[in-house]
Amino acid sequence: MALNIQEIQAPIAADIQSFEKKFRESMKTKVMLLDRIMTYIVKRKGKQLRPMFVFLVARVCGNVNDSTYRGAALIELLHTATLVHDDVVDDANYRRGFFSINALWKNKIAVLVGDFLLSRGLLLSLENNDFQLLKIVSNAVKEMSEGELLQMEKARNLDITEDIYYEIIRQKTASLISSCCAVGAASAGVDDNTVLRAKQFGEKVGMAFQIKDDLFDYNTAEVIGKPVGIDIKEKKMTLPLIFALNKASWLEKRRIVNIVKNESDKPKKVAEVIAFVKKSGGIEYASEVMKKYESEAFALLNTFPDSVYKQSLEQLVKYTIEREK
Amino acid sequence: MALNIQEIQAPIAADIQSFEKKFRESMKTKVMLLDRIMTYIVKRKGKQLRPMFVFLVARVCGNVNDSTYRGAALIELLHTATLVHDDVVDDANYRRGFFSINALWKNKIAVLVGDFLLSRGLLLSLENNDFQLLKIVSNAVKEMSEGELLQMEKARNLDITEDIYYEIIRQKTASLISSCCAVGAASAGVDDNTVLRAKQFGEKVGMAFQIKDDLFDYNTAEVIGKPVGIDIKEKKMTLPLIFALNKASWLEKRRIVNIVKNESDKPKKVAEVIAFVKKSGGIEYASEVMKKYESEAFALLNTFPDSVYKQSLEQLVKYTIEREK
Repeated sequence: MALNIQEIQAPIAADIQSFEKKFRESMKTKVMLLDRIMTYIVKRKGKQLRPMFVFLVARVCGNVNDSTYRGAALIELLHTATLVHDDVVDDANYRRGFFSINALWKNKIAVLVGDFLLSRGLLLSLENNDFQLLKIVSNAVKEMSEGELLQMEKARNLDITEDIYYEIIRQKTASLISSCCAVGAASAGVDDNTVLRAKQFGEKVGMAFQIKDDLFDYNTAEVIGKPVGIDIKEKKMTLPLIFALNKASWLEKRRIVNIVKNESDKPKKVAEVIAFVKKSGGIEYASEVMKKYESEAFALLNTFPDSVYKQSLEQLVKYTIEREK
Repeated sequence: MALNIQEIQAPIAADIQSFEKKFRESMKTKVMLLDRIMTYIVKRKGKQLRPMFVFLVARVCGNVNDSTYRGAALIELLHTATLVHDDVVDDANYRRGFFSINALWKNKIAVLVGDFLLSRGLLLSLENNDFQLLKIVSNAVKEMSEGELLQMEKARNLDITEDIYYEIIRQKTASLISSCCAVGAASAGVDDNTVLRAKQFGEKVGMAFQIKDDLFDYNTAEVIGKPVGIDIKEKKMTLPLIFALNKASWLEKRRIVNIVKNESDKPKKVAEVIAFVKKSGGIEYASEVMKKYESEAFALLNTFPDSVYKQSLEQLVKYTIEREK
C-alpha cells in the first residue's frame, strides 16, 4: 500500500492551493533583492506536510477560515526562517536538492532573510489579533531551540537516559507538529479541551516520526539513499543505542562509549557500533516504541468525529511515520 | 562638557537596576548549557542605552510600570538575538569552508540561542497581553532586516541617491531607537498621538546617530581608535560620499566609482576617495544634515513637559550623537 501525497491531499487541495497564493502575497516587500529571494523560497517549497496538518485538523474540528490560513502561514514563515538559519550554520549548499539561500546570496543575507520572515509572521498575526495562535507557535519555537540545545548538552558526555531522549525529541521535533495541529484546531474555534487533544495527537505523531528518523541511521538496506551512522558520528545518542547500552555489560558499554566519544570519525568503528546495536535488539525495541506512539496517535484521532478529512489525516500519519526513506 | 553615562542615568538608576534583575529572571531555563550562556550574555551587557531610552521616555510621559520592564526586556531580547546571529555570520565568513566540529557546534548553539531569545521575548509579551508593544518591536525587526538588505542591494551597483540613503538608515538604525521611545511612551499609557511623537523623536535621534557613525569613517584625526575607510572597502555608500559624487564632474565621478567598485582593497586608493570627499565638502554637508536631525529631535522633545527625566533624555541624545568615537 504505497501512499501518495496527492491522494492524501485531495480533500483539502483547494485549501492548500489558496494557502500558497496567500502565503506568497504575505511575503511581498518593496526591497527587490528580498522579493526575489522570497519568490525563490516559494518555488522550492517541499511536500507541504505542515500546512496539511493545519488544514486537515481544522476541517476535522469544524471549518477552515481566514485565521487557519494565517496560522499555517505563521508556521511556514517561522519554520522557513529556522531552515534558512540552519543553512548558515551547517554551511549547507543544498536544501531539497536546490542551492540553499546562503550558497546563493551569502550568509549575512540568509540571516537577515530569516529575521525578516520571523517578523513578517509576527506582524501578520498581530495585525489580525491571532494571539492564541501566536502563543502556540512561539512556544513551539522556544521548545525547538531548547530541545536542540539539550541534545547538544547531552552529546558532550553521552550520559543520556531514555527519559531524556524522549524529552529531547518531544521538544525538538514533536513540538512543531503538535503546534500545527493545535493551530488548526484553535483556528476552527473549538474549546480548549479539544485544542489540547489535537495538540497531543500531533505530539504522538511527532514522537513516532523522530524515532523513525533515528532508526534510519541504523538501516543498512541498499535501497536507502541516506547514509547510515551520521548520528553516531555527531555523537547523537538515539533510542536504539541508548537501549543497547542499558543492556550491555560494564566492559562492553565502556568500549562502545569510547568509540562514540573518540573514534566516531572511523567508518569501521561506526560499523562496530551499528552491529552492537543490532545484536542487542535496539532496532526492534525502538520500532516497538515507535508503534506505541503511532497507535496512541490513532487512539486520540479516533476521539474526533468521522469524516473524509479524518481519513486523510490517518493516511498522512501513516505517510509520515511509515515512509521508507 | 564631557557627558558621563552614570550621571545621565542617575534619575532612573533604580529602574535600570531593577530591570537588569528582572531581565535575568525572564531568561531562566532548565537547559543547563543555555542557562550558562544566558548568564554570560547578561554579564557582557553594554551601556544599556536602549533600556535608558525606554525608561526615560516612560518617565517623561508619565510613569514606569510592569509593562515598561517587559517592553525593555523584549527589545533587549530581540536585539541580543540579532547580535548573536551576527556573530555567527561573521565567524562563518572568517572560516569559510573549513569548519571544525567545535566551530560548527559553536555556530549551531549561537543560532539556537538567538532563536530561544526571540521566542522568550515573544512569550513574555504574549503572556501579559502586551500586544501594542509587540507590534512596535516586530515592526522594528522587520524594518531593520529590510534596511540592511536594501543597503546590500544598493552596494552592488553603487546607484544610490540621498533619499535612498535616508531610507536605509531610517530602517536599519533609526527604527530600533524609535521603537525604544514608542515602547516607553506606550507602556506609560499615553494616547496614540503622544506615542507617535515619542516614536518620531527616537527616529530623529537614530538618523543623527547613524550619520555621525558614517562620518567616523572619514575621520582621520589621530585620537580616534576606529580605522577609517571601512565603509568604502565594503562598498557602503554613505552621505559624505553620495554628496561629493553628486557634485563631481562626469569624469571624476567615473574615476571614484571605479575605485570603490574595483580597487577598494587598496589603502592608497581608499585614501584618494577620502581626500575627494573632503575636498568636495562632503564632511561639512553630512555634519549639517546630522545637526538638522538633532535639532528636530530636540524640538520634538520640547513638546513634552519639563522634568528631571527630560533633562536626562536631552543629555542622552547629546551623548549618543556628539560622542567622539
